[in-house]
Order: sequence, then structure tokens, then C-alpha cells
Amino acid sequence: MKNNVNREIPDQLLKTQNDQGFQMTDFGQPTIQRVAPKVKAQTGPSKVVESIKQVVAATVRDGMTISFHHHFREGDFVFNMVMREVIDAGYQNLTLAPSSLTNVMNDIVVEAIQKGTVTNITSSGMRGSLGDAVSHGALKNPVIFRSHGNRARAIESGEIKIDVAFLGVPNADEMGNANGMNGDAAFGSLGYALMDAQYADKLVLITDSLMPYPNTPASIKQTQVDYVVKVDQVGNPDKIGSGATRFTKDPKELQIARMVNDVIVHSPYFKDGFSFQTGSGGAALAVTRFLRQAMIDNQIKASFALGGITKPTVDLLEEGLVNRVMDVQDFDKGAASSMKNSPAQQEIDASWYADPANKGAMVDKLDVAILSALEIDTKFNVNVMSGSDGVIRGAIGGHQDAATAKLTIISAPLVRGRIATVVPDVTTVITPGDSIDVLVTEIGIAINPKRQDLIKTLSKVPGLPIYSIEELQQKAEKLVGRPKPLAFKDRVVALAEYRDGSLIDVIKEVED
Amino acid sequence: MKNNVNREIPDQLLKTQNDQGFQMTDFGQPTIQRVAPKVKAQTGPSKVVESIKQVVAATVRDGMTISFHHHFREGDFVFNMVMREVIDAGYQNLTLAPSSLTNVMNDIVVEAIQKGTVTNITSSGMRGSLGDAVSHGALKNPVIFRSHGNRARAIESGEIKIDVAFLGVPNADEMGNANGMNGDAAFGSLGYALMDAQYADKLVLITDSLMPYPNTPASIKQTQVDYVVKVDQVGNPDKIGSGATRFTKDPKELQIARMVNDVIVHSPYFKDGFSFQTGSGGAALAVTRFLRQAMIDNQIKASFALGGITKPTVDLLEEGLVNRVMDVQDFDKGAASSMKNSPAQQEIDASWYADPANKGAMVDKLDVAILSALEIDTKFNVNVMSGSDGVIRGAIGGHQDAATAKLTIISAPLVRGRIATVVPDVTTVITPGDSIDVLVTEIGIAINPKRQDLIKTLSKVPGLPIYSIEELQQKAEKLVGRPKPLAFKDRVVALAEYRDGSLIDVIKEVED
Repeated sequence: MKNNVNREIPDQLLKTQNDQGFQMTDFGQPTIQRVAPKVKAQTGPSKVVESIKQVVAATVRDGMTISFHHHFREGDFVFNMVMREVIDAGYQNLTLAPSSLTNVMNDIVVEAIQKGTVTNITSSGMRGSLGDAVSHGALKNPVIFRSHGNRARAIESGEIKIDVAFLGVPNADEMGNANGMNGDAAFGSLGYALMDAQYADKLVLITDSLMPYPNTPASIKQTQVDYVVKVDQVGNPDKIGSGATRFTKDPKELQIARMVNDVIVHSPYFKDGFSFQTGSGGAALAVTRFLRQAMIDNQIKASFALGGITKPTVDLLEEGLVNRVMDVQDFDKGAASSMKNSPAQQEIDASWYADPANKGAMVDKLDVAILSALEIDTKFNVNVMSGSDGVIRGAIGGHQDAATAKLTIISAPLVRGRIATVVPDVTTVITPGDSIDVLVTEIGIAINPKRQDLIKTLSKVPGLPIYSIEELQQKAEKLVGRPKPLAFKDRVVALAEYRDGSLIDVIKEVED
Repeated sequence: MKNNVNREIPDQLLKTQNDQGFQMTDFGQPTIQRVAPKVKAQTGPSKVVESIKQVVAATVRDGMTISFHHHFREGDFVFNMVMREVIDAGYQNLTLAPSSLTNVMNDIVVEAIQKGTVTNITSSGMRGSLGDAVSHGALKNPVIFRSHGNRARAIESGEIKIDVAFLGVPNADEMGNANGMNGDAAFGSLGYALMDAQYADKLVLITDSLMPYPNTPASIKQTQVDYVVKVDQVGNPDKIGSGATRFTKDPKELQIARMVNDVIVHSPYFKDGFSFQTGSGGAALAVTRFLRQAMIDNQIKASFALGGITKPTVDLLEEGLVNRVMDVQDFDKGAASSMKNSPAQQEIDASWYADPANKGAMVDKLDVAILSALEIDTKFNVNVMSGSDGVIRGAIGGHQDAATAKLTIISAPLVRGRIATVVPDVTTVITPGDSIDVLVTEIGIAINPKRQDLIKTLSKVPGLPIYSIEELQQKAEKLVGRPKPLAFKDRVVALAEYRDGSLIDVIKEVED
């Protein structure tokens, strides 16, 4: 059957008889019975064990679900250390349930798949050799892609049941009190990992810095931790930060950032106490800089900035232009290290950030969100997952979650090289057009027709070219032509869930 | 049958066929399936409702379990405001499950009992008119007294299932982000209340200070809160602090404090990195002062101070004599207000503080605990619950929990007025003698015979009189005589659990 973004969902993938796949962005007010871990009591003086090998042997069994976080990003050493032992020990049929998979994890996951160690994966995304392998049918069962908020929801509801979580931390004491703010490999907020810490039956911390007991502030608490392993190094500091704190000089990115700023500033949401999420990357940082100037010029202060936080956003806090910074992750060292010193910079977990199934997520209070896109189509549906060749090379991240903002802006170039960004139909629908308000490209903007109010308001802004999304699509097509349709096999290799757990799209095996 | 502290437990009160009541202080390493709340999702912009009356009507139903915290102590306004509405609405057969009951709550609970509103109570303790009423058989079912750690355990395991928690806070925003550190009625750590926040199906915050969104630091998070009610005043600041930060001038208290210090300093635990819990009250503060001097003289620094925290303990932190202060509650304004500014002063919940059924509680790492007693007997069993007339007038607090320290010292006068503290048999066993190491009175100390090592070590300390516990009991009896045995009726009015949930004693209805 076809779901509400017109995607064919094979019947056998629907969860219940009434399941129709993705229907609407409104989550409603269901009452949900949460699950809780099985906890083995311990009263001993230390949880430090000799080696990862030893702790893997003590905790992992065939068929289990094991999890990791991706806060170390491309500087992660922990994932490979643990997976090496897991593979070498010969475990089979594991489900891998990390918060996301970064490139540094790709090759060993491919190996784990080839050896039958891993037969199921749920993740925010994947890229590189792993995305390629999965797209070519390497994994036994379909990957389930979930947004950060949806992962939190799925963990709380028991859809993801983590047997063992292996969490790398830049500091911990012998009992497991740990945070992400101190140490050589500091990354700031432990936001995604806090879900694993609360819900995993067994929690293993891996650290390179054993601190005197008790180690505070304790984002992860000793009450949650079963084992602590000391290793030489948990991550490469140079690769943990995104390095993207530089201000872009690319004229196309600058032009987009300027127009994004124009849209925000002329929207009804730009007023004292507004809130925003800008994300990372060169264009996002440029937006933050333009927004800063606009706030000063208009004497407007924001109540909070949300999401993955960068140093330029923390600077706004220090300047008094933003009242609170809410960090579910930190993209650079500056943001990471400032959090420990400022009560106005609050570490939040993935549930608080974005889970629709709790008593209120931050994203529900968000006025303005700026998001990216690999593709956006004439229904404003966005793809951040599959490339123009149909191969998986992206991540949902908080895309679906933050798109619930009152003003959701997609910031994207009209074309990338010889590939159109604005297309008739996206390859994979990740975020439904219903939650997207404005597309900003370097040549002008398109406003979702459901936002007649914005069309009216923004039409008055001098120097802000407004097109229909179809016009932008045609302009893109004129530049790069229309590619021939992708060829897929029948086999489904990945499922994309919407944040409520419904299926918004499926990804099929690519033809060679 | 008789349990392992020789107390007769009526068969019908035992939980299972194998239940033999309290057996031992060692909790072992059981694996326990935790429970979790039912959560109703919401995405609205505000949770503020008009009145307590309205929120009571929306949440409370006959037969439910409702809970409160006692962090406002004798300055609490919230409990009475809520209970007034609950009683007036005519609800019946409720279970009252507060972290404890302070005197300011007594009269309205008695009224609620008389009207059938409340038929079950579990609490850390009770005193005054309420203790009197319960001791005379007013409550339909026996009260269950639980330590702070045991309450956390019982909530996590589902033995206490909180339907609605009404938590007073000195600040909160419209979504329910709150802490105990700011505002007129600030009390510091929300330690006990954090259990309710995590496990209650419905959570109502009552505050007198609505803060701009988002309010940080958020000890209670919006993800946990269903409703927020704004009232004029949540508490009387003058009565929230214990006021006991003055240094005692009572020569008897000073003598005891000096000897407590002697015991600590000459024990094998007084070395760099040791940890302690001193509690509140004049003698405890005097111990802290003596200990401070001993630490300076011996160039010894403590790793952490634990429990209910006072300003003099925070001073040790600021002086660098203590490395961390771990606050499950704060007894005075000084301790409360310093927490928000120091990452070395960590708010901990009751589970982390003292729950034996998690992956490690702070009390398990405790070297030295100084505790009080209403009575202590020749088996070193301690009573902190019932008076010499058999009437309930005390609270377990963290007594059983902290008694698991490596060196547990009971600090108590030999007699109080015409009443002996050291007795042949305590009226009610709350903390088993097995976990008590030393009794310190104003005339000398007694060491538990199971601690031959301490007897050997402390015998060498000049000017530290050591008696057997029987000798101290006889000296007390010589001073005040032997009272005639108390007369009780057959009916059990209260159960005292040990921290593992087993029955350590029962309290019977007093004869008039």
C-alpha cells in the first residue's frame, strides 16, 4: 500500500493490520507504557575490568542488541576496539544499534556483516563503504533508519531493547561516574548516549582517563554502569570536532545564508524570545553570523538555541543575545568546553531534545530550524539519506525532529555539480514536505503553498526572489538535465521510519 | 516467626512463603527488573494550569498512590495546599507515599485519615499528632516505614507505584524545567524528589516562581512533567533551613563530638581520600569542626562528604579539605545556594545516594558515617522511630543506608532526661546492630565485639574510655532506673522495613 507521502510500503513490512505507514506529522497524545532495564545490583568498590576482551566475554551473547554513541564522530577509537573483540570472539546475529555510524566505523561493520556477526542494524545513518555494502544487499535484514528523537522513542517504548551499551567517555571514575566535558577526547554533551545509559541492561564505559572518585559532574551515573575499562586512547581530539567553525567564503553558501537570514528576520517569528536551531557546516555558521547582526540591529534576544551546538552559538550566549544554549551534542571543542562552566548551557538527552512520545521535547518549542537536504522535491519532501545513484550516504540526524519548528527552512544549492537538488521526486523521503516551510537556494526561495501567510509576508521583502518549487525544479533541470530513472532490485535493504515509528519510505537494493 | 534481629513478625505480614523477615545486611547481587511509568505524550506550548483544585481533579482518583517530597521541611506550604483539595474533593482510600512527613503536615494527614481519604501511608517517618494518631490505631492499614534508599528501591521495583506526584519547587518554567537551587524558597538538592519525577505516571509541579523558558539547570526536566501550577508561595524560607548551623555550646554534645572525632582519627579509615557522612544537628556540626582541624593537622584530605549537607561541610570543600560534596538534600541555605555555582557539589538522587538494588550507591563507598539514636541496645540494634512510650516519633531517614559504612558511629547521650538511651532491648529495631561499629556517649565509647580490630586499635588511644555496651547500659540504668515494660495491643500499626525491603520490626498499637 502507499503511505501518505505516496511511497509504496510492502505489506509484509507493516507492523500491524491497521498500520498504513506514515500518515501525518502530528503525533497526538497517546499514552505509552515505558520499559525499564534489568539491573544487577552491585556494592563492590570498583567496576574496573582488565580489558575490552574480558568485558565483551562477560556481557555479549549471540543474538543480542549492542549499542554505541557517535559523539566522537570521525575521531572515534572505541567502536573499532569493541567491534574487533566482538567479531574475533565469533558472536553471531547481533543487532547493532548505535546513535549513528560515522565513516571511521564503516570497514569494521562491513566485516562484521560479512562474518555474520551483525545481521541487523538501526542507526541514524551510514555512509561510505558501509552504505555501499548495505545498498548492494550485504546485510541479512533491512537496516532501520531512525531520527535522534525516534531512537529515543523506540528505546523508551522497547522497540529497541539494548542488551549491552559500550559507551566511550573522555573521563570516568572506578564506579562509572562520567561526563563528556573533560579530558583529551572531550566532546561535550553526551546527549545521545544518555538514552543508552538509562535503558541498557548492561552498560560498559570505556575511557582513557580514570578520575579520582567521585568524578563530577556526572552526566552518566554510577547507578547506571556495570563495567569500566581503561584504554590508552578513546579518540583522536583533532577529528572529534567538526573543524567547521571557519566562516565560509564560498559565494554560493554566503548568498544562501544571507537569504536564510532574510527569511527569518522578515518572518513573524523573529521577535524577542524566539528560538532557533542552525546546525553545523559552513552555511549554518554563516547564518548564525548574519542572525547575530540582525539581533543586534533589531535589539532582539533569543530564548534558546538548540541542537548540535557550535562555538559561534556559544558566543551568542556569552554576548547575551541568547538566553540558553541546549546541547544534545557539540560540534567543536569550543562548544564542548564551555558547557562545563556555564549553567546557561544545558546538556540535554535525545528524548528531551526531540522525542515526540514524552511530555514535551525541545523541538516542539522551536521557532526556527535551518536544515539541509541532499534532495528536495516539488512536494517539499526532503531526502537526506540516499544519493543520486540510490546508494545510502546520509543520516536522518535530527532532521525530521527539528522540522516540526514553526518555521522550517531547507538551505540547499539548486544543483551540486551535475546533480539537481530540487527534483520532481526525491529518491527517498525522509522528512515529509508537510513539515517544510521554505526552501532557500542561491537563486531564490520557494515557499510551501500551505504557508500562504509566509508567501504574503515574504513577498514584500525587497531583493528576495520568490519562485514556486516547480519553477526551481525546472531551473535545476535546465542546468543539469533530467537523469534517467534509477534502477532498483525488488529487495528492501533499509527502512526509513518517521519520528513516530511509522514507515515513511523503504530503500531498495541498487542495480550494479 | 522471629527474624534475624529476634523480632516476632506475624506470619500474615510476610510477603512470600520463603520470606523470613530481615536476615542480613548484605544485599547480594540480585538482578531486578525495573518498572517504568505510563507516559502521556504532549507537544503543547505550556503546561500551566489554573489551580491545584483543577489539577487534582484532572489527576487523582480513588485508591491511587500520591506522593510528595519533604525538602521544604517545616517550611512546606505545598503539602497542605494539595491535601486540602484532595480531602475536600472527597477522594477515598488513597495511599500517601511522601519521601517523609514533617510536623507541618501532621494535622492534615490526621484529618485525611479520619475522613477515609488516606488509608495507607509509606514514609521515612512521622512525629507529633500524626505519630500519636497512628500509634493509637487511627490508620486503616499499617504504615510502612522505609529508609531513603529503600524508598528508591521500592519505587524502582514497583513496590511503590506512584500514580500522581505533587512536587513543590522554588522555580519552574511553563514546561516544567525546575531546580531546587534558585528562588525565595530554595532548598538545594531535589534528591528525594528526583525518584518521583522519574517514576510517577503523572507529575505535577507547584511553584511560586515561573521562570522564562527554558529554565536551567533543570534537575527536574520537562520530559517528566505533566502540569505546572503557580501559587503565591511554596514555602517559608525561614523554616526550610534547619537553622542548626550554629556550633553547639552544650558541654555534653561537645564531649561526644570530641570522642567521635577521636574514634575517626584513630581508626584505620582516617587517611587521604577517606569519605564521610556527618548529618545535621549541633553535635554533627561540632564533629565536622573537630574533623576539619584533624584533617589540617594531619594533612589529610577527604574524597567526598555525603548525605544531607550543611554549610560547614561546604566550607571544607571551599577550603580544599574535601574534594567533592554529594548532596541528596541540603539542610541550610548556605549549602543550598552554593550547589548551583560549584561543579564539585553534585546533586544526587535517593537511588544514587543509598539504594542497595542499583549498580552502586554512594553509601557503599562510605568510610565513616555518624548517626544518631533514640535508643541503642546491647546487641547494638538502633531505634530511631519510637519513643520510650512506644509512640511513633521519628524517621529512618538514611540511617540504615549510611550504617553500611566501613565505620558506623552512633553518637548519642547515655540518657536523655529520665530516659535511658542505651537499653537492654530497643523498642523498635530500625538499624541492625550488625551494621553498627561504635557507640559514642559522653562518658565513653562501646565497640561492637565483631570489630575486634577496632577494639585493639582504639584501646591504645589515650583518654578514650572504652566500655562494653552492657556496661554502658548498666550505667544508664543506674542513672534513671529500669522502666516497666511497655504495654502494646496486638494490632500492628506500622511495619519497619530494612533497606532491602525485608521486615525488620513491627510497631503495635499502644495501650492508652
